[in-house]
Amino acid sequence: MEIVKLGIIGLGRMGKHYASIIQTRIKNASIIGICSVNDDELDFAKYKLEVPYTFSNHKQLLELNELDAVMIISSTTEHARHMIDVIQAGYHVFCEKPLALSVEDCQKVIRVAESKPSQISVVGFNRRFDKSYAYAKKKIEEGLIGTPFKVKSQTVDKDTLVGFQKNYVQNSGGIFLDYNAHDIDLARWFLDSEFSHVYSLGGSFKHEVFAEMGDADNVMTLGRMENGTMAHLIASRTAAHGHDTYAEITGTEGTLRVGRPAGVNLVEIYDKHGARREVVSTFLERFGESFELQIQHFVDSVQQGNRVPHSLQNALEATRVGVAMTRSFMMKKEIQIER
Amino acid sequence: MEIVKLGIIGLGRMGKHYASIIQTRIKNASIIGICSVNDDELDFAKYKLEVPYTFSNHKQLLELNELDAVMIISSTTEHARHMIDVIQAGYHVFCEKPLALSVEDCQKVIRVAESKPSQISVVGFNRRFDKSYAYAKKKIEEGLIGTPFKVKSQTVDKDTLVGFQKNYVQNSGGIFLDYNAHDIDLARWFLDSEFSHVYSLGGSFKHEVFAEMGDADNVMTLGRMENGTMAHLIASRTAAHGHDTYAEITGTEGTLRVGRPAGVNLVEIYDKHGARREVVSTFLERFGESFELQIQHFVDSVQQGNRVPHSLQNALEATRVGVAMTRSFMMKKEIQIER
Amino acid sequence: MEIVKLGIIGLGRMGKHYASIIQTRIKNASIIGICSVNDDELDFAKYKLEVPYTFSNHKQLLELNELDAVMIISSTTEHARHMIDVIQAGYHVFCEKPLALSVEDCQKVIRVAESKPSQISVVGFNRRFDKSYAYAKKKIEEGLIGTPFKVKSQTVDKDTLVGFQKNYVQNSGGIFLDYNAHDIDLARWFLDSEFSHVYSLGGSFKHEVFAEMGDADNVMTLGRMENGTMAHLIASRTAAHGHDTYAEITGTEGTLRVGRPAGVNLVEIYDKHGARREVVSTFLERFGESFELQIQHFVDSVQQGNRVPHSLQNALEATRVGVAMTRSFMMKKEIQIER
Amino acid sequence: MEIVKLGIIGLGRMGKHYASIIQTRIKNASIIGICSVNDDELDFAKYKLEVPYTFSNHKQLLELNELDAVMIISSTTEHARHMIDVIQAGYHVFCEKPLALSVEDCQKVIRVAESKPSQISVVGFNRRFDKSYAYAKKKIEEGLIGTPFKVKSQTVDKDTLVGFQKNYVQNSGGIFLDYNAHDIDLARWFLDSEFSHVYSLGGSFKHEVFAEMGDADNVMTLGRMENGTMAHLIASRTAAHGHDTYAEITGTEGTLRVGRPAGVNLVEIYDKHGARREVVSTFLERFGESFELQIQHFVDSVQQGNRVPHSLQNALEATRVGVAMTRSFMMKKEIQIER
Repeated sequence: MEIVKLGIIGLGRMGKHYASIIQTRIKNASIIGICSVNDDELDFAKYKLEVPYTFSNHKQLLELNELDAVMIISSTTEHARHMIDVIQAGYHVFCEKPLALSVEDCQKVIRVAESKPSQISVVGFNRRFDKSYAYAKKKIEEGLIGTPFKVKSQTVDKDTLVGFQKNYVQNSGGIFLDYNAHDIDLARWFLDSEFSHVYSLGGSFKHEVFAEMGDADNVMTLGRMENGTMAHLIASRTAAHGHDTYAEITGTEGTLRVGRPAGVNLVEIYDKHGARREVVSTFLERFGESFELQIQHFVDSVQQGNRVPHSLQNALEATRVGVAMTRSFMMKKEIQIER
Repeated sequence: MEIVKLGIIGLGRMGKHYASIIQTRIKNASIIGICSVNDDELDFAKYKLEVPYTFSNHKQLLELNELDAVMIISSTTEHARHMIDVIQAGYHVFCEKPLALSVEDCQKVIRVAESKPSQISVVGFNRRFDKSYAYAKKKIEEGLIGTPFKVKSQTVDKDTLVGFQKNYVQNSGGIFLDYNAHDIDLARWFLDSEFSHVYSLGGSFKHEVFAEMGDADNVMTLGRMENGTMAHLIASRTAAHGHDTYAEITGTEGTLRVGRPAGVNLVEIYDKHGARREVVSTFLERFGESFELQIQHFVDSVQQGNRVPHSLQNALEATRVGVAMTRSFMMKKEIQIER
Repeated sequence: MEIVKLGIIGLGRMGKHYASIIQTRIKNASIIGICSVNDDELDFAKYKLEVPYTFSNHKQLLELNELDAVMIISSTTEHARHMIDVIQAGYHVFCEKPLALSVEDCQKVIRVAESKPSQISVVGFNRRFDKSYAYAKKKIEEGLIGTPFKVKSQTVDKDTLVGFQKNYVQNSGGIFLDYNAHDIDLARWFLDSEFSHVYSLGGSFKHEVFAEMGDADNVMTLGRMENGTMAHLIASRTAAHGHDTYAEITGTEGTLRVGRPAGVNLVEIYDKHGARREVVSTFLERFGESFELQIQHFVDSVQQGNRVPHSLQNALEATRVGVAMTRSFMMKKEIQIER
Repeated sequence: MEIVKLGIIGLGRMGKHYASIIQTRIKNASIIGICSVNDDELDFAKYKLEVPYTFSNHKQLLELNELDAVMIISSTTEHARHMIDVIQAGYHVFCEKPLALSVEDCQKVIRVAESKPSQISVVGFNRRFDKSYAYAKKKIEEGLIGTPFKVKSQTVDKDTLVGFQKNYVQNSGGIFLDYNAHDIDLARWFLDSEFSHVYSLGGSFKHEVFAEMGDADNVMTLGRMENGTMAHLIASRTAAHGHDTYAEITGTEGTLRVGRPAGVNLVEIYDKHGARREVVSTFLERFGESFELQIQHFVDSVQQGNRVPHSLQNALEATRVGVAMTRSFMMKKEIQIER
């Protein structure tokens, strides 16, 4: 069994997370080169992650002859450009979601990827690898809840992350593209249909700063799917109790809830505050294992030469619907989605 | 302490429920007369409920000189007419929700009630008397969750009631007026504001018969309130697991959920199906106690001569918003609510 | 339907609770006379409860010709004496548990009761009337969990009641007789057998004062039943989170838990303390409805002339086993129970 | 970073589990040699696990010069003999629990281990590595529940494993040594004290075959600790709903429950059976991650030359107390534990 040799573009918060998983948990992969525009990050790569080659420019990384595949964890606004360069350089590629903040940029990447059909091109929607979401999908396919017709899905962050989000929001595309991207993907996955209309509401109910940037801290969307089913998507930056991401799928014979809210573990506390569970604080605490499974899946696909099941089309739709939701919120009216 | 002497108009499913509570559980009230168009129901009144006087016409009941107050549990389409007659006959009156299926009919009743300010005129929204909903309201007033800005509220029936609903739906005003009336009332109560816009979706996902009647078996609504806050209302006729009515109120400092789904009691079963709780089957099983508290409250108000806190205005708004939701669903667009 | 006319002996904490239920919630009963040794309590009876006759001596009450039945809610040490007097005076009688603190006193009462077989003599084990415990019993009888062979049952008070308990413990017979009386009764009920051996442990882990009185604040017992099945009984005076009384019954095909811990209602709170439910504070908050059902059952039995299903034998066994548990705790060894 | 080279003794059910974890999940370790008396198992080692050397005798394995450490996953009755041989051959060693079925055999191993103080000798109690149990311990050390004085701990298997258990029980030492070994260890860990007396009850309530072998399918124990605190230990082979292992620790200021029962994941199902969670079926499903963390901890300790925190003394006590519980069950009396 050969070790898969990886290059990484970007070593910010998420890049460090991915790279650490690969170096400590993925037995059949190793990072050969990392590029970052930040010297401290390159030191981290060299001394903490023990990566042999580091670069300040991703083009240098792509000239390394030893690589099997590249993972793009750079800032969202760079994803599309990096994808195009990596694919054209002939590498299998994994890119953190979202692929791009505009439909046009997504389509440009897709055209390049389609010109290289033997290379794997993946955008990561980690919740599909989460054991609970994947189990819900499996149960639906087994018919447990009959025909699904209603999905509620939410991405809810703990209020303590607002300081970070305020700086990050500028390049993130806003709450619909950044937070609801996952919920859009899940609704499509569970309902097996595309969004045809969206209607979004929201506001900055706790932190006025988001309104000042044209964004919101709490939003809600109703979506009508092409097959007539319904989606309800929520995003929030202000939960007091923790990171509270969940989904609920209702069919003609039952409902599945992907549990809410997730406890930090199986411990329940009975004390003066009542009977309580502490809730996970961040999406990494909630979804850490799914990131590992997602990376393992990509590495195994590269090693075995398999094309992975979900394509860039999912990333295009997440952006297309997210953009429409943003417009609905801005213009205070229903938006019809055109394809 | 004098016993409050009651007349009842209507002795169908809900009428029997109300009347039985009064005769067995309300110590300071007694039913003196009942009217119904159905002979079996009048026999039930005479022999099971031991009510002294029975009538086939509500005008005869109103001529009984012994009454202190009248409760109207007739069919929805008769509520407004009965209310006007009872108020004009000089009695305190309680009417099961909804007051009427049109804004105009509600307003007619209100004008009559306003001409008799010394008489109590109440439309029952029993969830306000449910101990859990009332506790949530109290906690909000105490500031536990900061400023509330988001309400989700749903009314979900077990699928086994569909046979009944199919016949009943003709006179009920449809799923938005019949089911969501409570959720509209709760959103207004918890968010302390009026609905300004609604956007509703829905379909007949399990029982085509509802579509044939111009109704739906599952619907969702987003509502924008005048103070900028948000409401998400759901109704369903097709739950497999039981009656599953709940609400969730989110504020700047926390969230309250009025528990979901309600178990039949505190028993948990661990067997081959896993770890499970049986869920209540009907709204009477879930809300039985609240109906009793609501009747007790009305009776005590009559006895003590108090005007009760929630007025007919709540009933008017439930109808006004329910009608707008129905229009939104029919016309597939957002509806602005005018006052 | 005639009103059942009741006399009450004792108007302390529990007496007030019983009397208030009767006066406000039991439609077919009314309190005619109350006796208490405390003048304030008699004023409460006269002015709050609107009871026509009050006495400082229970013998005077028994001479009232108007009574149908008597309820004894006096202090535990008086129960047996009052029972004997009431039965001999010819009345139906209900007595709060425990019947007496010694097997001998229980047997004396039973002999008197057996000499008056046409009179109803009941000791209240209210948990049998709790809807959840009763539902568990029903499910067991229906065979849901196969043959039951293991019962865990606990009576756990909130620590805030310790101040009260310290004064009360002197006359209560100690934690095994006072707290575990219910658990003994439930184990016998669910396992359908008598205790043959008990082994008890305990200590004063938080409040040394209980050790000084020869009692404990936390105890555990293993019991072997005559049919070979097993019981595990717990009592605690020191829970931080609330009153937490529950039971768990395991059979060959499943387990039933009578939910733990009981929330104050269906509200869940999501805030900085996590996802939590507030827990009931007292047994009255947890079991209030069962007391009402128990009184209603007694009143209906008197009215209809039915002998009620559970006899004084249950009360005798609760005392017999509680005494053996106390001995086991004191002597630090297993005790064989003789009959 | 050097790879730790491991030898494995035993490749039955648990051996395969350990070996697979090492080969696929532990990045800094690799299995160099495996010995088993079963040819199919050796084929599995060679072709599935890609282990270079395989042997039918553990002495041959110990002559391999390339090893850093050895893991013993042989049958329980061989543990002590294998431990002695491995330690004397100069290797760091990890042994699956229990160390031996008699106190004497445990002590023999301990004497050999003490003669080689520079070698790591570990018996695995994997629950200490489970994130939930470890979190409970951490919270106790932080003072969240005050002073702990009561531990309930249970090991409960799904009934479907009985077929396997019937064959396995012969060499396992019986339910107290095999199942409760973990619970004994946890009670000592949480209460920070040694068992002084135990009183055990039990029976074969579902499967007579266990009684025929002198064992039981359901047992309960009360334990008195040297510091006066209390333990309640349960084991069952017959749960209908799944593997249901949990613990509850009560202190003067609160209670921690290590959640029960563990769901297969975060999915809740609402269907005709009510609101339910599917429960894990086996201890490997519940505790898989803890085995991985335990192996990682051993490998890291070997790599870094650290002596690991919990010693063979824990294994000795698990056997000592388990033997006493077995005697109590057999002799139907309390057993005092001597040291």
